Amino acid sequence: MAPSEPPASSAGGLLQLFRDGEPRTRAHLAQVTGLSRPTVAQRIDQLIELGLIAPVADAASTGGRPSAQLAFNPRARVVLAADLGALHARVAVTDLRGELLAEISTPREISSGPEAAISWILDSAEELLPGLGYDLSHVAGVGIGVPGPVEFSTGRPINPPIMPGWDRFDIPSAIRSRIDAPVLVDNDVNIMALGELATAWSGVTDLIFVKVASGIGAGIVSGGSLRRGANGAAGDIGHIALARAADTPCPCGNRGCLEAVASGRALARALSTPEAPLHRPSAVVALAKAGDVHAIQLIRQAGRDIGEVLTACVSIMNPSAIVIGGTMAQAAEHLVAGVREVVYARSIPLSTEQLTIAPSVAAGNAAIYGAAQLAIDAALAPERIAAALGG
Amino acid sequence: MAPSEPPASSAGGLLQLFRDGEPRTRAHLAQVTGLSRPTVAQRIDQLIELGLIAPVADAASTGGRPSAQLAFNPRARVVLAADLGALHARVAVTDLRGELLAEISTPREISSGPEAAISWILDSAEELLPGLGYDLSHVAGVGIGVPGPVEFSTGRPINPPIMPGWDRFDIPSAIRSRIDAPVLVDNDVNIMALGELATAWSGVTDLIFVKVASGIGAGIVSGGSLRRGANGAAGDIGHIALARAADTPCPCGNRGCLEAVASGRALARALSTPEAPLHRPSAVVALAKAGDVHAIQLIRQAGRDIGEVLTACVSIMNPSAIVIGGTMAQAAEHLVAGVREVVYARSIPLSTEQLTIAPSVAAGNAAIYGAAQLAIDAALAPERIAAALGG
Repeated sequence: MAPSEPPASSAGGLLQLFRDGEPRTRAHLAQVTGLSRPTVAQRIDQLIELGLIAPVADAASTGGRPSAQLAFNPRARVVLAADLGALHARVAVTDLRGELLAEISTPREISSGPEAAISWILDSAEELLPGLGYDLSHVAGVGIGVPGPVEFSTGRPINPPIMPGWDRFDIPSAIRSRIDAPVLVDNDVNIMALGELATAWSGVTDLIFVKVASGIGAGIVSGGSLRRGANGAAGDIGHIALARAADTPCPCGNRGCLEAVASGRALARALSTPEAPLHRPSAVVALAKAGDVHAIQLIRQAGRDIGEVLTACVSIMNPSAIVIGGTMAQAAEHLVAGVREVVYARSIPLSTEQLTIAPSVAAGNAAIYGAAQLAIDAALAPERIAAALGG
Repeated sequence: MAPSEPPASSAGGLLQLFRDGEPRTRAHLAQVTGLSRPTVAQRIDQLIELGLIAPVADAASTGGRPSAQLAFNPRARVVLAADLGALHARVAVTDLRGELLAEISTPREISSGPEAAISWILDSAEELLPGLGYDLSHVAGVGIGVPGPVEFSTGRPINPPIMPGWDRFDIPSAIRSRIDAPVLVDNDVNIMALGELATAWSGVTDLIFVKVASGIGAGIVSGGSLRRGANGAAGDIGHIALARAADTPCPCGNRGCLEAVASGRALARALSTPEAPLHRPSAVVALAKAGDVHAIQLIRQAGRDIGEVLTACVSIMNPSAIVIGGTMAQAAEHLVAGVREVVYARSIPLSTEQLTIAPSVAAGNAAIYGAAQLAIDAALAPERIAAALGG
């Protein structure tokens, strides 16, 4: 333990116990932490001073004495969650439990560059906060998802193919010019995996979230945490080679990548005619929903192709849940059926005994929920609490 | 935090700080933990009573006063590490740092069943311990690796294909009939990954250890810990489908598994003639070492095949090290060359920028070191220390 790291018995350490929302007494805290009663009392006073812990209103009268029960106060501060897509943008304000309080959503091109996007996020926040009784000084953390690879430790996009002008742009510094709080940036798929996990998979520790949209990517949750790998590139399943795709060129420069045959972009291309070109995955979904047999067949086959690659993921990671999200999951009945067909046929029984394969529950909210989760975890981290206390 | 879990500020929590071998004073401990001086003193007394912490002999005279410096005493107790292979067995005694003190190694068939194997482990321990000044009561933990899938939480092999008579056998209970200590059982590949990590990859948090012997399997280290997945089946890469192997039947019942074409067993079969049948991977290695061109070509191709599957592992996990171990790694120059050829050609640049692909450093000791590591971590876990203190 480095001397600069606050101990688990710090005020911030105590705060973690309260994050489940259950009320606790000082006596109980002394018992479970092994800290002395005076130490517990002092640290609780610090958390009350920060507004993060508050006495619970007792049902029974306590004869005028303050309640012995204390609980987390999730409205003490707020966080900002931003989801920047290729062609849309969304900013939300949530409380410290991740409950969505207000949001702005708009069509917006990521290619207009980082300065404009960051200004839009900050301006949107200033528009939303006053109506909720807050201002920028109440923002305890900011989480941002972007459609490209990110060096998570610094919050900089690295060679992002569809984000011209963003390469190595220091997003956290730009935000911190107006907000004094931790700023976390990650790629959209990782953020969606976190949001999905928090929304619908409590207790699940091993989950693979697959985003099938224009491209294909995955967020890998193992042992209860998102795994980013050595360079933040974990989950990049769109460029795994697929036997069936052997000769198909991929924009990445290789041939035979999963994305080259099974992405929404590939399907839109396959369904295009000179008279009726399709440009977006949503157009493929619309065709399928209208009962177009060719579109349905292609989506089903894309599910099988994705299933081939997920079978390898199952062998390597042994997850208990595979969740399919992204635009193409709006045609989940066909896409997920194809995935299931292959994964269950091909994997060893031990790995699929308890494996659930399902469409995303958080769906369109996965990214915003995930960005909020990242911001909240950073805002309430013991180091951060120690810093707020001047320690 | 469950009330039964000892807090990080417990005696066991303090002990973790000492495991790096550095001496510390009580004053320093009070400072980094936030515990009061009397509390620290009391817990240190408990650890001294258990023999796990001892005063350090000062270089300078302290005028007769006991040294203020305290340090971990790795010889207070010992652990047993056992590596049971298909045709060999090895038992070692190590200290609480994992230093090997004595061992017995012998040819032994796992198919002779669990009772005989457990008796052999215990008898071997009773043979080794007295010469070191210990007996079974000094054994603080037992780690065992077996050549098949294991339900890690209970230490029972589950449908192990080459371990007749072992299915769901309760290995920990059998050991605990004579040793009162935690018993951890895992499959050999996971154990080897732990041993390799501890031996040669300090600071590396994302590593894939591949055992290439009769079969092929992997141990997955991500975020600094071994990942077993939801059912303990993570790392089962031998049965991932390989395009080149499409029609080759695998003993698992499927077709086209990596193991069916690239394992030591597959290579031995391919190199067998009616006059000179080969049965063991070591015979393949011997041919290659003797300069047999066909054997060398087949090993190189096996490396490429394994590389195909590892390319998928790289996309999914983004490790910074891939380590090749097992019998076939004795022909590492050919095998690793094949792996490198494919992985570096096929992966995206961000994933391979800092990726090392190397033969195992721990080599023949990986399993024993890993089994010792498992046993030590369990023996020194805060829960265990609390139990030893009657808490």
